[in-house]
Amino acid sequence: MNRRIKLTIEYDGTNYAGWQVQPNAVTIQEKIENALYQVTRSDIRIHGAGRTDAGVHALAQTAHFDTEARIPSENFAAALNTFLPDDIRIIESKQVPDDFHARYLAKGKVYRYTIYNRACASALLRDTTCYVRESLDTELMNEAALQFIGVHDFSAFCAVKSSVENKVRMILRAEVKADLPLITFTVAGNGFLYNMVRIMAGTLIDVGRGKISSTDVKAIIETKDRTRAPFTAPPQGLALKAVLYKKKDEML
Amino acid sequence: MNRRIKLTIEYDGTNYAGWQVQPNAVTIQEKIENALYQVTRSDIRIHGAGRTDAGVHALAQTAHFDTEARIPSENFAAALNTFLPDDIRIIESKQVPDDFHARYLAKGKVYRYTIYNRACASALLRDTTCYVRESLDTELMNEAALQFIGVHDFSAFCAVKSSVENKVRMILRAEVKADLPLITFTVAGNGFLYNMVRIMAGTLIDVGRGKISSTDVKAIIETKDRTRAPFTAPPQGLALKAVLYKKKDEML
Repeated sequence: MNRRIKLTIEYDGTNYAGWQVQPNAVTIQEKIENALYQVTRSDIRIHGAGRTDAGVHALAQTAHFDTEARIPSENFAAALNTFLPDDIRIIESKQVPDDFHARYLAKGKVYRYTIYNRACASALLRDTTCYVRESLDTELMNEAALQFIGVHDFSAFCAVKSSVENKVRMILRAEVKADLPLITFTVAGNGFLYNMVRIMAGTLIDVGRGKISSTDVKAIIETKDRTRAPFTAPPQGLALKAVLYKKKDEML
Repeated sequence: MNRRIKLTIEYDGTNYAGWQVQPNAVTIQEKIENALYQVTRSDIRIHGAGRTDAGVHALAQTAHFDTEARIPSENFAAALNTFLPDDIRIIESKQVPDDFHARYLAKGKVYRYTIYNRACASALLRDTTCYVRESLDTELMNEAALQFIGVHDFSAFCAVKSSVENKVRMILRAEVKADLPLITFTVAGNGFLYNMVRIMAGTLIDVGRGKISSTDVKAIIETKDRTRAPFTAPPQGLALKAVLYKKKDEML
């Protein structure tokens, strides 16, 4: 009997060319599909909630697949982990209705971008934070983050190479918290454009440096012009924290 | 003019055979001495506050060395970092009196042992935490940790291969805090025996599992017999948090 299984996945993206299968590069999706072959002896395609770029991490990425293998749904996690490298862990596997879709039914996502703000870079957190040497004003950064909240055309916060037409997204939560030397930017929305969170993070870093103001951020959003937004912050600071399927309340 | 310089060092011990220089293995001390040669063009020996084992980390290890190089003391940090791999960072360099000694003058050390307690191991924190699957009772663990406080002969908490004669040490602080899935054991004392914190951590994990009680921990200390203490917890959960040179108050 065919079943649809949902996976929740944590990964350290440092050693991968991102989530999505691609030629001549090792990806997280590929590693999981290979493990799924080992477990089921069938070629099974998995469908992720979204792609993450090279070097980007996930605390709880989600994906689904269909299988006829006679393995209890909850046991796929442990079985797959046996064949996966230790920088990819299936936290949970469970059966979902046949019409569930990890990508199309996702109501929102939560991302976390972490900055390491000290005179010297961190040895221990070098692969999971973005290092910024100059002292950042986190109150200004948090004030600027509020500008992202609401329904906006985020064209100014989308990588030029994106082919998506509709760039309107709804941001429900955007906040900056400081626990120095760590500064965390958490953002939740109904969807994100290519490189959107990293461009937001780069923008907030420039606010923290005093190069631009909170009002400038509002103006940049309104220009809808990618060339107006500051740099794209590096991938290692970014982590997909959650994919939400139910109510918008989960995002707040 | 000869100067004595003190270094404060953060490192990720994952890829090293520990702190101390040894044949046929890459160590942190060796990497720093090599970088010091690049900077000064002299062979300089550095003296660490203490050794850390393979896989053990440091947030603030300390070391000193003597040099006649005409480099401002504060600039050694940045200069050395240029030649060091990014899993070793010199956080600070400063001149100290000629009679300062990183090891002999250390009044105490603070260690942190971190446990990842969840049904599934962590992909992101695999190299910096010790994974324990069974749910641990952290209140019992904290109660048991209190037994370590005070002046005790810690023979039961010292690796058999240690050649140290006097195994009496003073523990000023020992506590377990839970922020699940993370559980942190912090311990501060005037000195630590070989593997002492890792044996303490292994003991507390067995308390958390309900295998032994707080009273048993007291009894194990009193036996002064290494064979009576539980297992040695793995190195990756351990980090040297601070080396203290001034007052005992710093440890509390």
